[in-house]
Amino acid sequence: MTKKKLNIGLVGAGFMGRTHSNAFRQVGQFFNSEYEPVLKAIATRNAKGAADFAGNWGYESSESDWRRLVERDDIDLIDIASPNDTHAEIAIAAAQAGKMVMCEKPLGRNAAEAEKMVEAVEAAGVANMVWYNYRRVPAVTLAKQMIDEGRLGRIFHYRAKFLQDWTISADVPQGGMGTWRLDASVAGSGVTGDLLAHCIDTAIWLNGGIDSVTAATETFVKQRSHAVSGKVEEVKIDDASAFLARFHNGSLATFEATRYARGHKALYTLEINGEKGSIAWDLHDLHRLSYFDYSDEGHLRGWRSIHITDGDHPYMSQWWVPGLQIGYEHSFIHQAADFLAGLASGTPAAPTFREALRTDYVTDAVLASAKSGRWEAVQG
Amino acid sequence: MTKKKLNIGLVGAGFMGRTHSNAFRQVGQFFNSEYEPVLKAIATRNAKGAADFAGNWGYESSESDWRRLVERDDIDLIDIASPNDTHAEIAIAAAQAGKMVMCEKPLGRNAAEAEKMVEAVEAAGVANMVWYNYRRVPAVTLAKQMIDEGRLGRIFHYRAKFLQDWTISADVPQGGMGTWRLDASVAGSGVTGDLLAHCIDTAIWLNGGIDSVTAATETFVKQRSHAVSGKVEEVKIDDASAFLARFHNGSLATFEATRYARGHKALYTLEINGEKGSIAWDLHDLHRLSYFDYSDEGHLRGWRSIHITDGDHPYMSQWWVPGLQIGYEHSFIHQAADFLAGLASGTPAAPTFREALRTDYVTDAVLASAKSGRWEAVQG
Amino acid sequence: MTKKKLNIGLVGAGFMGRTHSNAFRQVGQFFNSEYEPVLKAIATRNAKGAADFAGNWGYESSESDWRRLVERDDIDLIDIASPNDTHAEIAIAAAQAGKMVMCEKPLGRNAAEAEKMVEAVEAAGVANMVWYNYRRVPAVTLAKQMIDEGRLGRIFHYRAKFLQDWTISADVPQGGMGTWRLDASVAGSGVTGDLLAHCIDTAIWLNGGIDSVTAATETFVKQRSHAVSGKVEEVKIDDASAFLARFHNGSLATFEATRYARGHKALYTLEINGEKGSIAWDLHDLHRLSYFDYSDEGHLRGWRSIHITDGDHPYMSQWWVPGLQIGYEHSFIHQAADFLAGLASGTPAAPTFREALRTDYVTDAVLASAKSGRWEAVQG
Amino acid sequence: MTKKKLNIGLVGAGFMGRTHSNAFRQVGQFFNSEYEPVLKAIATRNAKGAADFAGNWGYESSESDWRRLVERDDIDLIDIASPNDTHAEIAIAAAQAGKMVMCEKPLGRNAAEAEKMVEAVEAAGVANMVWYNYRRVPAVTLAKQMIDEGRLGRIFHYRAKFLQDWTISADVPQGGMGTWRLDASVAGSGVTGDLLAHCIDTAIWLNGGIDSVTAATETFVKQRSHAVSGKVEEVKIDDASAFLARFHNGSLATFEATRYARGHKALYTLEINGEKGSIAWDLHDLHRLSYFDYSDEGHLRGWRSIHITDGDHPYMSQWWVPGLQIGYEHSFIHQAADFLAGLASGTPAAPTFREALRTDYVTDAVLASAKSGRWEAVQG
Repeated sequence: MTKKKLNIGLVGAGFMGRTHSNAFRQVGQFFNSEYEPVLKAIATRNAKGAADFAGNWGYESSESDWRRLVERDDIDLIDIASPNDTHAEIAIAAAQAGKMVMCEKPLGRNAAEAEKMVEAVEAAGVANMVWYNYRRVPAVTLAKQMIDEGRLGRIFHYRAKFLQDWTISADVPQGGMGTWRLDASVAGSGVTGDLLAHCIDTAIWLNGGIDSVTAATETFVKQRSHAVSGKVEEVKIDDASAFLARFHNGSLATFEATRYARGHKALYTLEINGEKGSIAWDLHDLHRLSYFDYSDEGHLRGWRSIHITDGDHPYMSQWWVPGLQIGYEHSFIHQAADFLAGLASGTPAAPTFREALRTDYVTDAVLASAKSGRWEAVQG
Repeated sequence: MTKKKLNIGLVGAGFMGRTHSNAFRQVGQFFNSEYEPVLKAIATRNAKGAADFAGNWGYESSESDWRRLVERDDIDLIDIASPNDTHAEIAIAAAQAGKMVMCEKPLGRNAAEAEKMVEAVEAAGVANMVWYNYRRVPAVTLAKQMIDEGRLGRIFHYRAKFLQDWTISADVPQGGMGTWRLDASVAGSGVTGDLLAHCIDTAIWLNGGIDSVTAATETFVKQRSHAVSGKVEEVKIDDASAFLARFHNGSLATFEATRYARGHKALYTLEINGEKGSIAWDLHDLHRLSYFDYSDEGHLRGWRSIHITDGDHPYMSQWWVPGLQIGYEHSFIHQAADFLAGLASGTPAAPTFREALRTDYVTDAVLASAKSGRWEAVQG
Repeated sequence: MTKKKLNIGLVGAGFMGRTHSNAFRQVGQFFNSEYEPVLKAIATRNAKGAADFAGNWGYESSESDWRRLVERDDIDLIDIASPNDTHAEIAIAAAQAGKMVMCEKPLGRNAAEAEKMVEAVEAAGVANMVWYNYRRVPAVTLAKQMIDEGRLGRIFHYRAKFLQDWTISADVPQGGMGTWRLDASVAGSGVTGDLLAHCIDTAIWLNGGIDSVTAATETFVKQRSHAVSGKVEEVKIDDASAFLARFHNGSLATFEATRYARGHKALYTLEINGEKGSIAWDLHDLHRLSYFDYSDEGHLRGWRSIHITDGDHPYMSQWWVPGLQIGYEHSFIHQAADFLAGLASGTPAAPTFREALRTDYVTDAVLASAKSGRWEAVQG
Repeated sequence: MTKKKLNIGLVGAGFMGRTHSNAFRQVGQFFNSEYEPVLKAIATRNAKGAADFAGNWGYESSESDWRRLVERDDIDLIDIASPNDTHAEIAIAAAQAGKMVMCEKPLGRNAAEAEKMVEAVEAAGVANMVWYNYRRVPAVTLAKQMIDEGRLGRIFHYRAKFLQDWTISADVPQGGMGTWRLDASVAGSGVTGDLLAHCIDTAIWLNGGIDSVTAATETFVKQRSHAVSGKVEEVKIDDASAFLARFHNGSLATFEATRYARGHKALYTLEINGEKGSIAWDLHDLHRLSYFDYSDEGHLRGWRSIHITDGDHPYMSQWWVPGLQIGYEHSFIHQAADFLAGLASGTPAAPTFREALRTDYVTDAVLASAKSGRWEAVQG
């Protein structure tokens, strides 16, 4: 079978540029599709960096301006892996040029920006998707299946945290290449848009919409030098952000993210308590799902640690044999596979821009509540 | 050495009556003191129950009215292990009669009640203590030592939960002997006073005072039949309660308690993240303390699971040999030992009524915020 | 109900003297019985030590020679908690005097000694029991129930270890009060009789008889000074002992014990793999049982961690409430309770001397194989 | 920089054909080298299967006879991923043709076969390596570094297990494509050569040579039908294999492998106890290393769980960011990277055929001891 070529133009050569490129390179060996991603071009501001990245990952060409990718006829899809402040402009231009668009999360720096992006892709009628990759960790996908099958029953509680510790030192700069996530003008917000956005996307997917929130944010290190200018400036992002939430389904939730939790590198955890059972998962052991099934015999009930490496676990039939775990980057490969499958079937892979916009409404409400000191209703 | 007798009059023959009695019976074999508790009398409304309880635990006599204990000259100390709505009246009467007073937590059903109790014991100048037993779990005591030694450095985050699942069934009644904790008039509140009170007491001890909170409470099952009357009535307690808090030391905190977390029986967990390290503990494995020490060599850093069973761990030199764990009830024995030691030394064992009052101020603020939808300052 | 008095005479004031005394003191408050243990007398060679021990634990009297206990008419039961080299002489004398006999494990220093003890108690027709306390850890008792119910099906593998690290330093002496376990003439053997004996007793109970073994022992520190004489002498005990075994039921097993496993204080672990399921347990978290049930749905199978703190778990209805763990010493209280129940019912509590003799046959075979380099059949 | 092409001819299109191919495809994106693997050709008996495999993985051509690969001038390296009974013939032919040779483990079906393979590659002077991939799991590599740095001190104990459960059902056939591992004539042995070989290779690498062993093997299901012929025949492989061992360094060891441990899919575990510390690792959480450091302060000692995802952990600087785990297949990528680095540096990547032969000597001794019932010395 000859496959249809899908010519990809990537924007951004950082961490996410790597995970996306790896996904496009690997998806074809492990997942069957009528589409074959072709690494056509990579754009990043630094021409030498772009060429090196292209050489390493096998892109056929490189550009130092993303606008060139949008102009090129041999590109079908623009994949945005550059900092948050570039998402809207690139996505809108790409959509207007009739390209499919993939965008790294969060969609916009705020909901207003994200709404324009949604409008653009919908007006253009182009395929679109946001890389909320954790939905495609097999354990999380299994959790979704279990909830949809009614295994947890009525939900009482949702609980999520994303804990890191990489900015505790006051010597970490803000701005620049590796640390733009500390620069509010580029990132939009701190951990709210960076880490809580992941937690919220998964939560909405698993537990439905959020009604209202009350939040607190904190900036522990008040001033940092800028990575480029060297100037010591006020830090405007949130170092930590926590909120309580009420979901449409009546469940009560706690969310928290921080970069000041010593000992935790990227500990995204979630737990859901329902009438019939509970599940828990964490990113530091992403290949396991904890499950408590109240229908087990009373004296033999206990939390099960399911080792998600079997052929009947989501996505796992495509990998190795039972007992052999996969890693972080596989969640991107799965999302790429689902995107290709969505193109073939006509049912777009989730989350689309419109679906991902819901997360921006929640993060906006969180930041608003942290300022107002009141419960804030979630828009949308 | 002849020991001084400390004649004890216990009020209450329920779960807490048992843990306190066990503590008084055992403390002498394991902890040396110049005082020897004597199980003089037990009072509970049911005369037969009181006599049976006395027989089982070795109390010399029994009464069906706690007032008799207060009147008796052969009683030095009144220990209150009866439901919350009796705490204030008994404590005040006991103090006025010149008895030492111990009281099961929470001190009062609210801070107003608790303030009167504090006034009474201080006016009478009698020894007093509240049974916040979890301070005396050796792992928690070690955590306190580590914090006092500066091992965690500046604190960024405090996180505590107390999760249970015993009231999920709508068939659990409210009121009556085993279920008075679901009756707001008796208990004062639901999980806020029952479970969060424990979390707050430990938090204040480990991390200092709380400035302000924003909270949410929920009652999942709206009506329950009363255990005694059989009448179906509105449930007025909080089934779940969560709040965000800011501490005096600038740290940001999340607290949550519920009786609707399927799979968790009595999972009290706490975690503290500081600049130099972090600690975590949970009640389901109370003999372990998790510790992350940032001063370890970088590539060998990891969370340590300290098995708190060695002679150089708090209280543990009095028990068995390394590797052999103790259980829940030992925390009460330790608190009894510390009370006796406090009598001997003249430095009262913590928390005194006044110290425990601080927790009531926080739970009051939590309940107020849950109603007002605003941040509430903590009094006191 | 008036209870029948059971007058106890304890021999030995060491670690095991404490655990037994505690069991006798506490059993009555938690387990109902028609018999009530009375702490009549304690004997240990040092008269002052005996008196102090009596004072601490509430024994009515003390002796400096165990023979006095055997002679006294007011003693019903002799409980042997002294070093291994005294077991046979005391047990035989006690039986001949018509006393019931309890003996700390191992029964004898070897099977020949143990056989004589069995003969003595059976000839005298007195109640007898060996303190293999780990059978009464509720998680282990539950494992036994599950096996008896056929939940594991045909057994393929048994695996047990008992790992300690307290003798790694060459400065630990041999002989004397706290270190008689390193003196072969007193202890009989090293870890084989001390630690493996526990593993073997549980294994026979759970998995049936052992046919044959092949073993290796090792003494890592070849010379130690004697605690009393100070003389540096050859160490004659086994520091470590491992063996492979075949059980009557066709299962294949590995056993290992050592006092040189850095980081493990008293880590007794066992695991059983059957056709229908597996179970695992360890002493460092004795309140949990791990269970894998193959009959669970395929993609949701996982090892369950059962928190053994519910009322429907063995022995646990007598303790606290779900979620609250008990500790090491409770296994002795349970064994005392079962002994009393056995007296009342006429069905002796296990293991009797005869049952415990089976373990001595296995340890004899292990030591023989370690010498011969061949598989050795287990006698009896 | 232009890279030197390394033209690879793969034999075998099964599970190991996939892991090797994936390694060759990915190594270049993550590890810099002067050599670039080129997927030149794949050979497997089924011509259609060979072509499909080539299409999926990007091999330029395919063959239905491995001899064609050996004959072709455009192949530099023969990589053997076919069943064990083909290893010797292919490796010897390839070496004689002057090709570099990589071989999946175990080297031969027995040491006699393996010796001939060693002779062949050494006579030809060609680069050679055996795919004992678990050495390159970063946690295991770190363990090796720690041991070489003396962090564990004198070693007392080594302990390894490899537990699976996939052949418990009597319906699993022997022989044929997916189940040749149950056919003794093809595999050489059962779990001894399949699973224990991994454990032994790691053990020799970490702990040095093995002197002697005493072993037991078992075949639980005595007859199985053949996957191809359908004939019910005696099962001649070992379903389970366990042995005790003494190492040159004086440490005592236990090893066990089985395919009858219900609940364990591919649970390779190892633990080493030394005077100064201990380490433990398992394949079901391969991204963690447990470490006990006796030099920690006494009351704060505990087993650390090191999350091996940092840039200063072996191989990890080439992957993602701290906290994000890699999976099973990465161990092959690392081994490919090391092979390429060995070509560039002139120091061959371990284990070479000669080094891997040591494992065959041990497995031969294990199987001999299981027959003889005696300790058997390890050759070589």
